[in-house]
Amino acid sequence: MGGDDAPRINIEGAVEVLSKLDSLTKLFLVGDEDILKKQCDEAGIGADSRLEIVHAPEVVGMCESGLAAVRQKRNSSMSISVDMVKKGDADAVISAGNTGAAVAASTIKLRLLEGVERAGIVSPLPSIHGYVLVSDTGANPDAKPRHLVAYAVMSALMARYIYKRPNPNVGVMSNGTEECKGSEFSLKAFSLLRELNERGLLPFNFTGNCEGHDLFETELDVAVTDGFTGNILLKSVEAVAKAYTNWIKAGIMGGGFMPKMGALCMRSVFRGLKERMSADAIGGCPLMGVNGVSIIAHGSANAKAILNACRMAAGMVRNNVNAHIIETMARINPVLKELDA
Amino acid sequence: MGGDDAPRINIEGAVEVLSKLDSLTKLFLVGDEDILKKQCDEAGIGADSRLEIVHAPEVVGMCESGLAAVRQKRNSSMSISVDMVKKGDADAVISAGNTGAAVAASTIKLRLLEGVERAGIVSPLPSIHGYVLVSDTGANPDAKPRHLVAYAVMSALMARYIYKRPNPNVGVMSNGTEECKGSEFSLKAFSLLRELNERGLLPFNFTGNCEGHDLFETELDVAVTDGFTGNILLKSVEAVAKAYTNWIKAGIMGGGFMPKMGALCMRSVFRGLKERMSADAIGGCPLMGVNGVSIIAHGSANAKAILNACRMAAGMVRNNVNAHIIETMARINPVLKELDA
Repeated sequence: MGGDDAPRINIEGAVEVLSKLDSLTKLFLVGDEDILKKQCDEAGIGADSRLEIVHAPEVVGMCESGLAAVRQKRNSSMSISVDMVKKGDADAVISAGNTGAAVAASTIKLRLLEGVERAGIVSPLPSIHGYVLVSDTGANPDAKPRHLVAYAVMSALMARYIYKRPNPNVGVMSNGTEECKGSEFSLKAFSLLRELNERGLLPFNFTGNCEGHDLFETELDVAVTDGFTGNILLKSVEAVAKAYTNWIKAGIMGGGFMPKMGALCMRSVFRGLKERMSADAIGGCPLMGVNGVSIIAHGSANAKAILNACRMAAGMVRNNVNAHIIETMARINPVLKELDA
Repeated sequence: MGGDDAPRINIEGAVEVLSKLDSLTKLFLVGDEDILKKQCDEAGIGADSRLEIVHAPEVVGMCESGLAAVRQKRNSSMSISVDMVKKGDADAVISAGNTGAAVAASTIKLRLLEGVERAGIVSPLPSIHGYVLVSDTGANPDAKPRHLVAYAVMSALMARYIYKRPNPNVGVMSNGTEECKGSEFSLKAFSLLRELNERGLLPFNFTGNCEGHDLFETELDVAVTDGFTGNILLKSVEAVAKAYTNWIKAGIMGGGFMPKMGALCMRSVFRGLKERMSADAIGGCPLMGVNGVSIIAHGSANAKAILNACRMAAGMVRNNVNAHIIETMARINPVLKELDA
């Protein structure tokens, strides 16, 4: 029931998932049973034996407080979906609904992985070599420097197992690439990562400070920051890409015959760019650090986004990324606690 | 002597300034006298009576620590330029050199305006209605919430006097537009601004929290944040715009005849976009809060950027923006101190 145009996009997504995700054995749609059943029948997937509709009488609105919604709406589609992962009935939950509620429900119900203190959202952004993963992009606005170590580990393991980067390059977002640049917060995170790196405890290549340029045009795989800065970064980057596209469109529309013909000739270029920049190619961002797989899709997700979010979930489950996180954090935490004392 | 391609770009900038800035009475070029004299003669401005070359035997490198450079290189072009403003020989200083050194020299030598506790860099970004001013973009990475009040005042007065926005809309960057969204830091800044707003003390329209979308596609005039987040925001936005352009170019070059012809037909659109996105149209960002006018230009500034940075400086001087800041802060500070106690 989550998303700007729910449940339509979720049903359309289900059609895609059932036809294209080979590893799928069961797809649960959680929400108003009557509505979902009717729409699934109309979409021609009502009789698919892999599909199961689970009734949830309540819905968390997009503007509700996440925490309050989790506590008060125990029969919301959000709550019931996460409960299914908790009980082991489902391997992963995907929601295009209220992000705050998805974070709160996943964190409270699934609890955190052993050795992880805070969950973080990992957002893949298009880069020169594919994707750069930025974390945290909003789960934890008031992070401590040591939380960034766990974000680095979790994102790097995601880069390794999902994006096939065996030795990911990981940086700390800062206001300059020089070692001395940073806020008190980022400098502390930098020094923790450097110490752990020198002791050979990190499952990635720590590259030091990074900034905007490094995200999009270098071989950087992961950039870590607090959830406040990460969220502002993510939304600003999305916004400028959108504004850029709108300004090109306005230039074409206001420019007479030549630009319009030019735009026609360049259709393939713009299509490629749109695909590259589109959040639908990613589908969803994992909330890493919770004991389960929870994928947060954009409110404006479409069927393709839902399919890709399910692919992301399948990759997280198949590669057992959470087990690798627990193992790595168990190795790091004793030293991290000592360094952060 | 500052900038990636100095002193060439500064001399080329001087040619532009001397021919196009009507209000100019004197232009000082500070640096190696022999080099500057020779290049000015070659550029045909050596005999202009408004031009004066001031000898400075040292140069601050782009990678030097700002603070150390100010303390150790007292005869650098940076130090001597700022000294000239301090002594009243010049109305403003413009540098495309080491930003940290420009901030340190300006803050230490010029000192802060009465009632201002921290200087902040104000960066204009292209927006739907012209420009949105983001502050601080890097002078003060570890800001306190009350510093954002002064950034808001200084940027709003700049919006009013330089960009002719009589009642500027001012927001606080946050991880969501709802009132409850934010870090501890941003929520405190929000509450200070709201209180001051309710008491009618602000010379602008406080609009609450803002995020990426608000910057580029709404009537927002000013967004305030700490220098760490602001710097990351600014550089990420610049980087994604650059990556976007490069991806379009790569699509054209790799796309055969049609896209190449299309790009030719769309030349005017791309030129317009380039101008809109170009930092040269701004030229430089004022370091607001210091007792004088200090403009920080991009390291990659060209002649046009230097001209526009001089125009910005002229606007700041002519409109006496600093006097308006002192006056406003004197009205706000007693209440601000009480609220922040």
